[in-house]
Amino acid sequence: MCGVGLIEAVPNVSEGRRPEVIETLAAALAGSPGVDLLDTSSDAAHNRTVFTLVGAGAALRTALLALYAVAVDRIDLRIHAGEHPRIGAVDVVPLVPLDPADMPVCISVATELGAAVAERFDIPVYLYEDAARVPDRRRLETIRRGGFEGLTTKMRAESWHPDFGPLRPHPSAGASAIGARRMLVAYNVNLQTDDLDIARRIARSVRASDGGLAAVKAIGVRTSQPDVVQVSINLVDFERTSLHRVFESVQREADRLGVSIRDSEIVGLVPAAALMSATTRQLQLTGFTTDQILECRLAR
Amino acid sequence: MCGVGLIEAVPNVSEGRRPEVIETLAAALAGSPGVDLLDTSSDAAHNRTVFTLVGAGAALRTALLALYAVAVDRIDLRIHAGEHPRIGAVDVVPLVPLDPADMPVCISVATELGAAVAERFDIPVYLYEDAARVPDRRRLETIRRGGFEGLTTKMRAESWHPDFGPLRPHPSAGASAIGARRMLVAYNVNLQTDDLDIARRIARSVRASDGGLAAVKAIGVRTSQPDVVQVSINLVDFERTSLHRVFESVQREADRLGVSIRDSEIVGLVPAAALMSATTRQLQLTGFTTDQILECRLAR
Repeated sequence: MCGVGLIEAVPNVSEGRRPEVIETLAAALAGSPGVDLLDTSSDAAHNRTVFTLVGAGAALRTALLALYAVAVDRIDLRIHAGEHPRIGAVDVVPLVPLDPADMPVCISVATELGAAVAERFDIPVYLYEDAARVPDRRRLETIRRGGFEGLTTKMRAESWHPDFGPLRPHPSAGASAIGARRMLVAYNVNLQTDDLDIARRIARSVRASDGGLAAVKAIGVRTSQPDVVQVSINLVDFERTSLHRVFESVQREADRLGVSIRDSEIVGLVPAAALMSATTRQLQLTGFTTDQILECRLAR
Repeated sequence: MCGVGLIEAVPNVSEGRRPEVIETLAAALAGSPGVDLLDTSSDAAHNRTVFTLVGAGAALRTALLALYAVAVDRIDLRIHAGEHPRIGAVDVVPLVPLDPADMPVCISVATELGAAVAERFDIPVYLYEDAARVPDRRRLETIRRGGFEGLTTKMRAESWHPDFGPLRPHPSAGASAIGARRMLVAYNVNLQTDDLDIARRIARSVRASDGGLAAVKAIGVRTSQPDVVQVSINLVDFERTSLHRVFESVQREADRLGVSIRDSEIVGLVPAAALMSATTRQLQLTGFTTDQILECRLAR
């Protein structure tokens, strides 16, 4: 498998409106040795910026601590407004193995980063998903529920004492959720119809929570085009449920409902391994590995 | 497109039997700064080693000159035997753009390398394919015809005066062909039959030389399995004829002849862009580019 030993970090920072602050945050990551800042996506409505960077564990930890230093200095959640629920200046930091076999490394990096953030910045840290030490904290939604505004009250309960750091929020920077999770693929299938109910029915039929495919989360949504609705999918484990299997399930259900598929789209970055199942199926390829992709060899 | 500015070089060296010489040749490439040696494939029967390395133009030229230095020192074609036709110790050096838009860069690197090889090692150099200055020298086969043994006689004709260097072969290292060409994809489709004639008929129906697909070279061959024959394909321009189009043409012709496809295989390395057509077709993807593949971003 391609990219062995490399980890992706996708820190979500509660600042999406002040360009000079976003630039300073990005510069803290980009200027840190041994990491590549691959993407910066800011959303003014959510007042949030999502960074994507890749590197080995130790280099990532150093870069992320530099990000925290800027965020703690420049962001004050007491005067922060935005649509997205958030608990901290550096709200969430998922660590994602490029090779699923490196999950234990991600859990270590999350744990070490959590301890360092608590010690250096006096911020309470919750470890989530595969890094969670408490079953209740696996789900990020649970940790974030109530947001920054509800944090002081929430933390009074013993069940919400943090994994690291003080028993109350940082006055301006709140708390932080640091976790390890599998690589998500954000994948949308567009349907040639204006009937939102059809997209919702297909979403229900393919998603895990309604008995569909194991690694699929899906909802039906409208798009910017009046005659197109969308099945918006998060594939949380592409090794368990492949991308082409998701597509074929949507296609089968759309056929049954008499609707045609317009096209599909992958949002953002995707590891080569997630695309391979579709390629090998289309070409009846055998014995092919991502190691044979030139760019994967170069990325090592 | 992924990999902008990077060039692949695939030098073919006339030594495939003495491990210590092959190691010294590989070390000359691997030890050169700014290049990655991705693959070394030696073939004792052909008495030849093919190296695959990637880098920017200037770094590649330096690495290849280091390879020539070792090859000229350690290989003597007067005592070289092997099945493959060859004219030189460093027999052929194709330079291949990872992004097709970088072809002009490859032509420059080939030309500069050719001039340097002639000057530094007193070896005659022929520029071939996209780097050719003479139409007759586009095809590598024409340059290689007659091999090392016929070179002294061949070079007496004015039409075979080299692009750079002396008007006679180097006594032990012969001559060298340096060129620029598109990325080849070596692709085989295996058929569930022992009838070689069927593989040959399908090869004829899909290859350009018999009026088939524009960028396809194909022959029918036996495999190591008694009940499987193969359509062995070189796809010389995957932007012109896509991989899945080749597969579908073979499949259609196999159907017509009542034979089923067992599987297909990609030999060696392939750029991500060559696989994308199959992926996007399988998933009806729109707007997807290789820039969205994580490893492609890292390879930059």
